Amino acid sequence: MTANPNELPAIEAAERIKSGKLTSESLVASCLDRIKETDGVIGAWQWLDHSYALDQARELDRLRKFGMPLGALHGVPVGLKDIIDTKGIPTERGTPVFAGRKPRRNASVVDRLQDAGMVVLGKTVTTELAFMNPAGTVNPHDVLRTPGGSSSGSAASVAHFQAPLSVGSQTNGSVVRPASFCGVFGFKPTRGAVSTSGVLATCPHLDQLGVFGRTLEDAAALADAMSGHDSRDTKSHPRPKPRILEGCRQDVPVEPLFAWFEPSYLDRLDDDARQGLEDVVALLGKQVERIPVPDGFELLVEAHRRIQEFELNRCLGDKVRDNREIVSDAMLEAVDRGHKVTETEYRDALRLKVGAERYFDVFFWDYDAILAPSAQGEAPPVGAGTGDPVFCTVWTLCGLPALNIPMLSGNSGLPVGVQLIGQAERDDRLFRTARWLLYEIVGGQDG
Amino acid sequence: MTANPNELPAIEAAERIKSGKLTSESLVASCLDRIKETDGVIGAWQWLDHSYALDQARELDRLRKFGMPLGALHGVPVGLKDIIDTKGIPTERGTPVFAGRKPRRNASVVDRLQDAGMVVLGKTVTTELAFMNPAGTVNPHDVLRTPGGSSSGSAASVAHFQAPLSVGSQTNGSVVRPASFCGVFGFKPTRGAVSTSGVLATCPHLDQLGVFGRTLEDAAALADAMSGHDSRDTKSHPRPKPRILEGCRQDVPVEPLFAWFEPSYLDRLDDDARQGLEDVVALLGKQVERIPVPDGFELLVEAHRRIQEFELNRCLGDKVRDNREIVSDAMLEAVDRGHKVTETEYRDALRLKVGAERYFDVFFWDYDAILAPSAQGEAPPVGAGTGDPVFCTVWTLCGLPALNIPMLSGNSGLPVGVQLIGQAERDDRLFRTARWLLYEIVGGQDG
Repeated sequence: MTANPNELPAIEAAERIKSGKLTSESLVASCLDRIKETDGVIGAWQWLDHSYALDQARELDRLRKFGMPLGALHGVPVGLKDIIDTKGIPTERGTPVFAGRKPRRNASVVDRLQDAGMVVLGKTVTTELAFMNPAGTVNPHDVLRTPGGSSSGSAASVAHFQAPLSVGSQTNGSVVRPASFCGVFGFKPTRGAVSTSGVLATCPHLDQLGVFGRTLEDAAALADAMSGHDSRDTKSHPRPKPRILEGCRQDVPVEPLFAWFEPSYLDRLDDDARQGLEDVVALLGKQVERIPVPDGFELLVEAHRRIQEFELNRCLGDKVRDNREIVSDAMLEAVDRGHKVTETEYRDALRLKVGAERYFDVFFWDYDAILAPSAQGEAPPVGAGTGDPVFCTVWTLCGLPALNIPMLSGNSGLPVGVQLIGQAERDDRLFRTARWLLYEIVGGQDG
Repeated sequence: MTANPNELPAIEAAERIKSGKLTSESLVASCLDRIKETDGVIGAWQWLDHSYALDQARELDRLRKFGMPLGALHGVPVGLKDIIDTKGIPTERGTPVFAGRKPRRNASVVDRLQDAGMVVLGKTVTTELAFMNPAGTVNPHDVLRTPGGSSSGSAASVAHFQAPLSVGSQTNGSVVRPASFCGVFGFKPTRGAVSTSGVLATCPHLDQLGVFGRTLEDAAALADAMSGHDSRDTKSHPRPKPRILEGCRQDVPVEPLFAWFEPSYLDRLDDDARQGLEDVVALLGKQVERIPVPDGFELLVEAHRRIQEFELNRCLGDKVRDNREIVSDAMLEAVDRGHKVTETEYRDALRLKVGAERYFDVFFWDYDAILAPSAQGEAPPVGAGTGDPVFCTVWTLCGLPALNIPMLSGNSGLPVGVQLIGQAERDDRLFRTARWLLYEIVGGQDG
């Protein structure tokens, strides 16, 4: 069976390119063909230009031909959510408010991707300002359903073999949830590992970048390529980053121990998703412990909402109100709610956040990962929003690395993900644990 | 024989720190002790604060203790030339014009060093505005001689075991020349590999960062840590960088072939230096070819001067003239000469530069490296300037990677370096060749 190049995992494609068995040009062309065939229905791409992508691919092929240095993902194309600034090509942030906007410089993360030898394939569809109002993208597994949001195009494009990898962002559940709905790996690294400089700021305390891939190793490789300190992002850590792909290839020193919480918001889980998760818990047997929900845990969801809306208003409130005819009601209402959050409420919410972070700093001395739902279940129908982000809220608030593993399916045969959450700044450990779960327990479902 | 920690090569120190045999704190303390003992005479440090350095070291030790990710040079201290912006600590650029200047943010290269887990030990002495007017640093091998410039403190501190590694800059010969005078490895990577964003701009077309170390591998490791694309530096290459340390550890596929040019400026070589270089050429036998100086080669030295003075005036002319009482005559004269260079002369010089770059693009299809002097010979006496940079001029102009190998000594027993120049963007190949020269021909003089 020979796969079309667009169907190859990113790491395998990079290996073929390095050894001369595949060119970046043919890989990129194969992705562009797939997009041409399918994106009329899927609607994952906001901006695409064949020569823009092919020119980069040919240049990377030329470097290889002349024996020049190769990057870890040399010649591999990647889609970028349309809130990530890209020099000279549009970055419109999912709203007519920014129609025609062309940044003068790249976001820092784009520099890192170029270090790794990647091809910027194009810009993927985001919901309005990376918030809740859905975009036109549909779920590749069922075109009458949402792909999730806000990284709608990033998730759908990888799921539908239009690109091997893509970058999204998550302020609440915008990577893990669409990954769950679309049946791909979605990973939000530890907050501070990947610079958000040059990315639309909607909530500076919480905005984080993340990745989509069709294999665990692909997600690890892209997260590695993107990571690195950048003092222009005040959240960025001025210290070494984990080597996630290395972690992903390591054996666990002992069988990992998982934690399972049962906060009240699990009521919002669909029955089939709950059953699937219970099956995983049963399969893990003694390797999982049911932990009582810590005091104050439930307050964190509300704290997240306050921080997000307060900062959304501070970052974008004026712009949104100045453009009230062309923004969604949901967005207007959100900034208005943010406007009403008092400084005191905001400070209190930030204090709760810090307390929770301290709790999880020591939590992972005893547990390797938290096992949790990624979303409520199968993707909801188009028109009913992009799904409930609550299953990601606390982990995003605390900046913990969070991974969607496409492991289950629901009553309609659609993907349902399982979320693993790990220790801050030990993303490598999380992937080591995830690999164990995939290979030892579930049995090689990676890819 | 147990070396004091400050005498360890950087790579060995990092390995000991990783394995728990050494702490970063004790290494940094050992360097600080050495500086305290010796810097009254040497004068290599412009700014130093014990707690600033020790706090970083303790934090890096804490990360190790808690099993957090470690960098490639975890816990190893590095000195930074005082033209490299460092947040919150002075960056005074070798002149009272910028006395008390504290940048609000780090230069991009500092972010990369923090990614690698390095400790910023302090700021090293630079000549006035990284140009010709000497600073107070002396040569550790003979305190009546210059350490060379403009990276005077960076070279002297590494030579005198005050720090295992340091960062300097080179617009003409400011890394390779002081390395030669001080008897250490000095390496200027390919132009565009290391971001100069946040570094004093004296000549944007030519300003480049470089490194000093006491072993070939140390220089390679630091250059690797510093490299990476940064679109804020217009010279920065948006593509993968060579892995220099890997190159340094590779065997050569065939015995390398060296080229030796005899441009007229070799008249300025001291007799003992010329004899030493002839000995190396003789030792290499058939592995070196004497190449006729290409047409127009001699014009490149003048082209470099025009570009440098024109841009120096454009970058700093007003500032220098506004402060004529506190800048050197040499600086005033240089910006005045720059002011008189016409746009046409400047454009013509840039055109010559591009032509030379094209020549060297194909040159290295046939040769592995150019063998050349690093400086005129032993370091000149204090008071007679910082030495003649002409032996570096053409290679800097063309942006080629250039390495000083501390291999010879002169009539007074002082160090005399040999320069190897390699293919642009194949710094790894240059180090592979250098290792061959050191181990196979000269016989293990590394370190």
